[in-house]
Amino acid sequence: MTSTPQPSRPSSLDAEIAARLKRSADGLVPAIAQQYDTGEVLMLGWMDDEALHRTLTTGRCTYWSRSRGEYWVKGDTSGHVQYVKSVALDCDADTVLVKVDQVGAACHTGAHTCFDADVLLKDGDSGVPAADQ
Amino acid sequence: MTSTPQPSRPSSLDAEIAARLKRSADGLVPAIAQQYDTGEVLMLGWMDDEALHRTLTTGRCTYWSRSRGEYWVKGDTSGHVQYVKSVALDCDADTVLVKVDQVGAACHTGAHTCFDADVLLKDGDSGVPAADQ
Repeated sequence: MTSTPQPSRPSSLDAEIAARLKRSADGLVPAIAQQYDTGEVLMLGWMDDEALHRTLTTGRCTYWSRSRGEYWVKGDTSGHVQYVKSVALDCDADTVLVKVDQVGAACHTGAHTCFDADVLLKDGDSGVPAADQ
Repeated sequence: MTSTPQPSRPSSLDAEIAARLKRSADGLVPAIAQQYDTGEVLMLGWMDDEALHRTLTTGRCTYWSRSRGEYWVKGDTSGHVQYVKSVALDCDADTVLVKVDQVGAACHTGAHTCFDADVLLKDGDSGVPAADQ
């Protein structure tokens, strides 16, 4: 994409990071939370510039809630805190990967990760001949 | 969110899956590609209903390219194919996690993953006192 929406809200995010961040039309980028030691993908949230800034500077994962329209510090309500271990942007700066140490369940359903319950395909059983794999 | 945009394009996706898929305003959902055995997060792409259908049924990861406005079978140009091992939706059906076996580099830059080059924070060095972690 040749242009990117500007931040929707005021932010203290480092100007150089903000300059290369490529936001969706709603001013957000998807943020993948991954357990730092096991590699499990825990959940995907959304960050605006300020949520990324807070994630980088407070040691706690902070997201922008699209449904509630407010910042959301993971674990503030549930106790299921995500302590930030590392943060990276992807090659075109439109996705964040946060490696975290997750306290308790990552999912609001109580499941360990948000991807445990709704498995569409397992064990590569898509009918593709083994010779093609 | 109480409603979700409908598919933008015709699709053969299973009707029950399509009924619970919660798409962004552009009709897409983010899709995380993770190496199935090492747990590395390789990249994030975008899928519409038909890209998800093809990913579920062909054994190859298929995305919707937002910049080119077309389907994109990972590896068709580069040879860096992603063979599908499993596919899951998250708890609110607005994100896809695809575990894959990645051939070669996942990133178009030649890097192993798309998250290798632009690290914003390492080793939890956010200045949070150790006692709080």
